[in-house]
Amino acid sequence: TVAAPAIAQSMPEIKWRLASSFPKSLDTIFGAGETMAKVLAEATDNKFQIRVFAAGEIVPGLQVADAVQNGTVECGHTAAYYYVGKDPTFAFDTAVPFGLNARQQDAWMLHGGGRELMNEFFKEYSIHAVPCGNTGAQMGGWFRKEIKTVEDLKGVKMRIGGFAGQVMTKLGVVPQQIAGGDIYPALEKGTIDAAEWVGPYDDQKLGFNKVAPYYYYPGWWEGGPQLSAFVNINKWNELPKFYQAAFENACAKAHTWSVAKYDAQNPKALRELVASGTKLMPFPAAVMEASFNAANELYAETMAKNPKFKKVYDQWKAFRGEQVLWFRVVENTFDNFMARASAQNKL
Amino acid sequence: TVAAPAIAQSMPEIKWRLASSFPKSLDTIFGAGETMAKVLAEATDNKFQIRVFAAGEIVPGLQVADAVQNGTVECGHTAAYYYVGKDPTFAFDTAVPFGLNARQQDAWMLHGGGRELMNEFFKEYSIHAVPCGNTGAQMGGWFRKEIKTVEDLKGVKMRIGGFAGQVMTKLGVVPQQIAGGDIYPALEKGTIDAAEWVGPYDDQKLGFNKVAPYYYYPGWWEGGPQLSAFVNINKWNELPKFYQAAFENACAKAHTWSVAKYDAQNPKALRELVASGTKLMPFPAAVMEASFNAANELYAETMAKNPKFKKVYDQWKAFRGEQVLWFRVVENTFDNFMARASAQNKL
Repeated sequence: TVAAPAIAQSMPEIKWRLASSFPKSLDTIFGAGETMAKVLAEATDNKFQIRVFAAGEIVPGLQVADAVQNGTVECGHTAAYYYVGKDPTFAFDTAVPFGLNARQQDAWMLHGGGRELMNEFFKEYSIHAVPCGNTGAQMGGWFRKEIKTVEDLKGVKMRIGGFAGQVMTKLGVVPQQIAGGDIYPALEKGTIDAAEWVGPYDDQKLGFNKVAPYYYYPGWWEGGPQLSAFVNINKWNELPKFYQAAFENACAKAHTWSVAKYDAQNPKALRELVASGTKLMPFPAAVMEASFNAANELYAETMAKNPKFKKVYDQWKAFRGEQVLWFRVVENTFDNFMARASAQNKL
Repeated sequence: TVAAPAIAQSMPEIKWRLASSFPKSLDTIFGAGETMAKVLAEATDNKFQIRVFAAGEIVPGLQVADAVQNGTVECGHTAAYYYVGKDPTFAFDTAVPFGLNARQQDAWMLHGGGRELMNEFFKEYSIHAVPCGNTGAQMGGWFRKEIKTVEDLKGVKMRIGGFAGQVMTKLGVVPQQIAGGDIYPALEKGTIDAAEWVGPYDDQKLGFNKVAPYYYYPGWWEGGPQLSAFVNINKWNELPKFYQAAFENACAKAHTWSVAKYDAQNPKALRELVASGTKLMPFPAAVMEASFNAANELYAETMAKNPKFKKVYDQWKAFRGEQVLWFRVVENTFDNFMARASAQNKL
């Protein structure tokens, strides 16, 4: 019986479990993990199957990294910046304040040394990470009261996590860690004064417009937050090489799929929010400036005590400088011309 | 002997040829096709192999669509707007004047109905198209003389192709069709006065800075030009479903790879060009305005005589309006804040 093993070796059947950090209701961000698993199965004639579990089904959404590290699941779909409590260096895989936009993050990851730096760092957590989605620049969130000056931020209890929360602390904000489903009642009751989530399409689903009128932009703490597939490194190394490649390609497909889906869906959601009375407002220039300075203070403090963070930051900062310089030339000029044409109702 | 056919059916060996529209020297744009073939082979254990041929090796670069249509090759890697001579509707697959940026093109293609519309159109050419790369917004090109007013464009012999060339004609430019390798000597001798190609990384390789001092931006005729894999539709339908999926995923990988590579490489090239004496300049506002109006005239004229073009344009235009409206909110605001920080040397 030579046949059976030869076939098996040709395309072995592999069944994995993926723990997502996201609830099923968020069809774009949860959908990126689901899409990855779907197109991977399709490309391997259903031989490499990954079953996707929503946040809480196997482990809570914010424990995906641990579940991957200790082998509870073979892989996860998450945002690495959820784990800044372990080490703030995690954040570079997703987004850091005043960082890269979605395309610049791709450039850093794929051709700027970012993936190599991050996977070197992730090794000690037994994680192999593959970029698998991006939301695009996020909104600054929902506020019950208008923010006119930097002073107005003092004492504001805001649902905002991790590294960005630490920057906000420097401005007097009191950051709160609240899971997605609990934000609405907290905002309604006034337990919190503000909350950031993602953008119009997701925020509308959670109904924040009903309990907070002011919707600010931009979310300067996540200009292009990347999602990642985290794979237990031993499980990764056990895969046949061509399944590793198939996994990488499936992640690439889900990556573009998710940004494109957000971009396609956000305009309608934003129109509906504004029609429902939402007051769409940019953060005042002085708030942006103070936030930028506070972020730089936090970077300096974090680098002083964390050499791993410093190693990534130094390389990343130089890359960011070059990227923004380049985008200033043709991308921004083109986008700004189109924006003016839109403002003049010429499109 | 049950073994051999069973294995063969499990992962059949398929060898295809791909005709690229690009020369090997352009490692990013040619590289996108090459990368697609490479990661497809890797993900199929080298069972689905595509050999990539540079422009001119099997067919000239601008005859890739024909070669795919008539089955000379199974597939090609090209920019659909090269074929506007057949029908201007081809251009929407790549870029049209004052169109979508790279991310917006993804949104239109993947979640905005673009792929469905384009593949319906491509059917009569026996082509199944898969997005496979993007250059990002291109530069406006190299000019021997400064362009201060719309008048200055009159009589300028410019290497610029297709639909954009027709818009330029309305401004008095005399468009020239010249293959990549012949642009430099034409510009040097003064046979032409201006030439557009791609952006700093590719343009530097061709040495245009040595023969034309003024480097304008933005290339308003291609704000996010997409490359596509063209597959002969019969060959596509003959593929096992899972090889179709593997092909799609490989294209997705090459897609992000190419934009990221341009973004990562352009800054250094631009610095070097400017250091060599290149005068980097935005098109004057009046030139942009006149170009925008000329493009709208051409759209109206083309729609009046081409119902296929009109069908795509009407759907696409509504989508563009919504995209730019949305980008005005958070993406542009974030990018412009970062641009100002860069201009103030704060990054």
